[in-house]
Amino acid sequence: MVQVLNVGSVRQSSARVRERNEARRLDILRAAARVFRRRGIAAAGMREIAEEAGLSPGNLYHYFSGKDEILLFCQENTLQRMLAAVQSAQGTAADRLRSVLHAHVHCMLDELEGATAHLDVESLPAKLRAPMIVKRDAYERGVRAIVAAGVKSREFARCDAALVTRAMLGAVNWTARWYRPDGALGADEIADALSEYLVKGLA
Amino acid sequence: MVQVLNVGSVRQSSARVRERNEARRLDILRAAARVFRRRGIAAAGMREIAEEAGLSPGNLYHYFSGKDEILLFCQENTLQRMLAAVQSAQGTAADRLRSVLHAHVHCMLDELEGATAHLDVESLPAKLRAPMIVKRDAYERGVRAIVAAGVKSREFARCDAALVTRAMLGAVNWTARWYRPDGALGADEIADALSEYLVKGLA
Repeated sequence: MVQVLNVGSVRQSSARVRERNEARRLDILRAAARVFRRRGIAAAGMREIAEEAGLSPGNLYHYFSGKDEILLFCQENTLQRMLAAVQSAQGTAADRLRSVLHAHVHCMLDELEGATAHLDVESLPAKLRAPMIVKRDAYERGVRAIVAAGVKSREFARCDAALVTRAMLGAVNWTARWYRPDGALGADEIADALSEYLVKGLA
Repeated sequence: MVQVLNVGSVRQSSARVRERNEARRLDILRAAARVFRRRGIAAAGMREIAEEAGLSPGNLYHYFSGKDEILLFCQENTLQRMLAAVQSAQGTAADRLRSVLHAHVHCMLDELEGATAHLDVESLPAKLRAPMIVKRDAYERGVRAIVAAGVKSREFARCDAALVTRAMLGAVNWTARWYRPDGALGADEIADALSEYLVKGLA
């Protein structure tokens, strides 16, 4: 009985540690991303990232083994959210597409500082890059399948689903290049207007 | 008389030298761009660019003072062609927009190897970057003016012209990220399909 209680409490506390660790890693990611934006990914160093995150370099290495692991965490995190949006989308093809593009814009702009690193798959060493490309391709296939389903059901006009999908993803990815948090439009307004416009071109 | 003839022939021959110089610089640009794609802009060195262009490093410096000047030449060249497309576009707003987007896709894909450098304004030192941003903004304004004119004449539905312009430019810029010269679609087919789709969303 005592042992069972102990195991339970160890489990609870290790879950809490994991959560705290994850939150800390997200904080570090945001700090790293600010450095990436300021200095470029290639020039950013772990020392500078630690400083930005308010950690000692040694403490930073407790959370991430290096810059590549930070990049990888950023890309995994963003792609996971995007894939979840494809899986949970409901309604007509137009509805589903709008909601996926809406979520994609939010991924780009809410974590704007991570978006730079997310888009820069080329900065990862080849070994880490490969699984990210697999995930990114899975996401692109998911979006393309919605376009193709809409074409098949005649909800959309005939088109090259692969090409149109890339055009849509390009338009939403590009937001990370021009969006300014202090600009005239908020992330939600941009997400609304872009998803509306991009789906309309399929009618 | 003799003097006049001499001046004329000096002019002719200096025009020929300029032309040859310009063609050589374009060759070097393509070679540089292959290195940029292979190694990333930050990691590419003048020695490697010279080797790719089949020149000695000393000879390369005869044409370009350094990597920044190559980047600048690439960006100036591409923006000049894009601005020319805005100025020469004719017909309805939809016609003009289609022709500008068509030319933009060609700029991205025909000189694909230069497109990476063109898009990477951030790689330029601040002093060189500023005039490029001025030109890029002028181009964006030109495209936006066509969208706004179409909205005003009711050829297009009401929309946020600035936002839609950025969506269109994002979609066409993104082609440089995914296009493969040995892929299923040629540059011209991609230009046709994208300009058609992107203008349709404005109807």
